[in-house]
Amino acid sequence: MKNRLDLQMQFLIEIDRLKSVLRRTRLFDNSRQENVAEHGWHVAIMAMALAEYSNEPIDVNKVVRMALVHDIVEIDAGDTFLYDEAAGQVKEEAERRAAERIFGLLPLDQAREIRSLWEEFEARNTPEARFAAAIDRLEPMLQNALTAGHAWKEHNVRKSQVLGKNRPIVEAGSRELWRFAEGLIENAVREGHLRE
Amino acid sequence: MKNRLDLQMQFLIEIDRLKSVLRRTRLFDNSRQENVAEHGWHVAIMAMALAEYSNEPIDVNKVVRMALVHDIVEIDAGDTFLYDEAAGQVKEEAERRAAERIFGLLPLDQAREIRSLWEEFEARNTPEARFAAAIDRLEPMLQNALTAGHAWKEHNVRKSQVLGKNRPIVEAGSRELWRFAEGLIENAVREGHLRE
Repeated sequence: MKNRLDLQMQFLIEIDRLKSVLRRTRLFDNSRQENVAEHGWHVAIMAMALAEYSNEPIDVNKVVRMALVHDIVEIDAGDTFLYDEAAGQVKEEAERRAAERIFGLLPLDQAREIRSLWEEFEARNTPEARFAAAIDRLEPMLQNALTAGHAWKEHNVRKSQVLGKNRPIVEAGSRELWRFAEGLIENAVREGHLRE
Repeated sequence: MKNRLDLQMQFLIEIDRLKSVLRRTRLFDNSRQENVAEHGWHVAIMAMALAEYSNEPIDVNKVVRMALVHDIVEIDAGDTFLYDEAAGQVKEEAERRAAERIFGLLPLDQAREIRSLWEEFEARNTPEARFAAAIDRLEPMLQNALTAGHAWKEHNVRKSQVLGKNRPIVEAGSRELWRFAEGLIENAVREGHLRE
């Protein structure tokens, strides 16, 4: 039987694979696609820096922990592009199975804790989950804004899709950050980086 | 004059560059060198998963925040290989200047907060800083252990150096994690991945 530390190490070794799962969006200098691990790092620091803009009072530390673990399931389920409707529909079941397997590597108490953090993020029924979801959406909009709409253009995304997919989520977490995001979107349209 | 959110965004955009600063150690699958942003993500999750092994009671959330920001100065100062004695000596001043510039992008209250987190990490005078430093050392030892000592071999590192550089730091944070690390080191020597 494995001891507790062995189980924890097995989990910590497994999640290294998230560094090799690529997202559609690119680094701000447009040098390459972002990977999911570094995205988690960036969103966690955004939580620390932008917490004051949450619509509701939040436990920032919980948002940070959520940001760190929210995409671990993508080791098995892969990253789904926000505007890929077909993939979005099969995603849920694949992510549930991934959560079972990957969080299940940990000792039971920790597996439950981290799984419940992830489920809370997915359900968006708490102030922390709503704010975490808002900044999770803000990061790729920033990336598109700073790379002349690279991923938007590459995947033929229109302004109405960006508004439709992001507005409800970002606004539910932070009206102020949505106003900022709207500015990015308007600017991208004006500069021809996003189709009207 | 820039408003508060503009300053925060400027900081959040600047730190994206950490994703392009490479460390000497490699991903567990040996596919490429790790970058500093994904290292921060990994160490933060190690803090969550391994907190119980701290020698002293700790505020885990503080360790997580420390892990996230502890290497941001490397955007300007670069990553210094632990076993590079010459570089280690000029590192301190370069990192202080980097902290001034990068954390200084934030509004003053947040610049102070994040700078004090970083200084606390560097000084290792608190239980949280000692534990953060221990897991910051543990991650590259795991990477070497899992890649047949890739970075150790490449840079001609000997067992006595690994012990000398890591034992005092890891043991000060967690005697139990040091015992685990010792096992990795002994095993690497036995398998010819680390020179006696």
